[in-house]
Amino acid sequence: MTQTDPEWFQTSVAALTQHQTLRVWSVIVTLFGDLALGTDSRVSGALMSRILEPAGLRPEAIRVALHRLRGEGWITSQRRGRTSHYALTRFGVEQSEAASPRIYSRAQPALTTCHVAVLPPMSQADRTEAETPLLEAGYSALGSGVYFGTVAPPENPDLFCIGAFADDMHLPGWLRNQLGTPSRIAAYRQLEAALDLVAEQLPKTGLTPLQTASLRVLIVHDWRRVLLSHADLPDSFFPDNWPGGRCRAKVMDLLDRLPRPALDLLEEDLTRQAA
Amino acid sequence: MTQTDPEWFQTSVAALTQHQTLRVWSVIVTLFGDLALGTDSRVSGALMSRILEPAGLRPEAIRVALHRLRGEGWITSQRRGRTSHYALTRFGVEQSEAASPRIYSRAQPALTTCHVAVLPPMSQADRTEAETPLLEAGYSALGSGVYFGTVAPPENPDLFCIGAFADDMHLPGWLRNQLGTPSRIAAYRQLEAALDLVAEQLPKTGLTPLQTASLRVLIVHDWRRVLLSHADLPDSFFPDNWPGGRCRAKVMDLLDRLPRPALDLLEEDLTRQAA
Repeated sequence: MTQTDPEWFQTSVAALTQHQTLRVWSVIVTLFGDLALGTDSRVSGALMSRILEPAGLRPEAIRVALHRLRGEGWITSQRRGRTSHYALTRFGVEQSEAASPRIYSRAQPALTTCHVAVLPPMSQADRTEAETPLLEAGYSALGSGVYFGTVAPPENPDLFCIGAFADDMHLPGWLRNQLGTPSRIAAYRQLEAALDLVAEQLPKTGLTPLQTASLRVLIVHDWRRVLLSHADLPDSFFPDNWPGGRCRAKVMDLLDRLPRPALDLLEEDLTRQAA
Repeated sequence: MTQTDPEWFQTSVAALTQHQTLRVWSVIVTLFGDLALGTDSRVSGALMSRILEPAGLRPEAIRVALHRLRGEGWITSQRRGRTSHYALTRFGVEQSEAASPRIYSRAQPALTTCHVAVLPPMSQADRTEAETPLLEAGYSALGSGVYFGTVAPPENPDLFCIGAFADDMHLPGWLRNQLGTPSRIAAYRQLEAALDLVAEQLPKTGLTPLQTASLRVLIVHDWRRVLLSHADLPDSFFPDNWPGGRCRAKVMDLLDRLPRPALDLLEEDLTRQAA
């Protein structure tokens, strides 16, 4: 947080970051996905630092994360004079584009194919290991060794999986509670409180492109983190009073009030501030 | 067993009955289904006793079972002179006809719709109670609170069920072992040994209609008991070397060698023997 940021901005950033330790590489992925989604969309290291600095991310941590993302094939870097510029690779663009529809959709997901995956009887320790790829693929445990997901399960020759279109499926209350667990509801509630605060504090005019970018990245990152922690399902699959739909509406409202700034505008803003 | 029955017959009946305590009402249901499947197909009490006597079923036990079957709406009785005659009701015919295709089919079942049903997390004691209707509907436990079946599950608002056509479904070995449990394999092996013995002992000619009827009822009853203890699935759903298909072929071979005797022929045979 720089001294020159106004109080409303500092309060908003604090609200959006207070309940979590930001994973730097994940925030950078969000930044590219939101502001620079294309192999030609180059972001200077200085701009990246400036956008992420209000959230408390230090340039060293950003450099480490960029190194890792380059190693994993997500980004490329190019040196121009004294500064490096970064862009998504084709792979990075594909990964971001795969997540985008879910993150930026204004509507709840349509009915989908549901899968129930069953592991063989095994010890608790073996099951903890065997279920990890399922949970990482967005599956939710329904009981011991039984999982519910909306995508084809990860390859495992011991897994029995049955999938069907979710039309007309009876969804008992306990199932909806397993899909929308209390901890997921709590995460949405925290996000909602932060979104409400930002919405209240946000001035109608006078934001700099850099302030807009910082807020967008943090809002999308928080939304993405909570959203991608559970299966992509219509609200009817979750408990009554599920906050998912409300949060979606509030995220989209804020993003509408914070129109995506073009990269050249951001670099200009940066130069102006440095001058 | 009457003194006048030949040894091959006594040995065959012993082989078909040695591994179980026959449930009289269930044997009577088999008898109607095999020999008198129609509301006009009347069986005298005397004939029924004579067919079931070799298996060790006493007239008193038969009377009690007939009383129960009448009370449950399966059969009606009609008195003609000194003897009562029994026939299936419309309901009894429907119940028998529902089971017949599976029992008398010469081929393994076609691919079918599979259902996985999941009970909510609960104590072992509650689960034992909650799963009873599922097991009675032919569902097999895949794990704690997870069941596999081929028919729609019994009504239970707490049950989550997903069903899909079994085409292309990956069937891991442990699943096939849960569907074809060792105790089911053992039951088939015992049946197969009895069928082999009967096939070996059965004379080419000279059987009375009553002997034929007794053997048919016991063979169908044994087959039905083992067959209906598991879900109606193609052999590919069961462990390698599953004896189901072999037993089916042996049952059908024996029934071909023991053509179903008409009821009037049986009543005549009875009168002749009594004379």
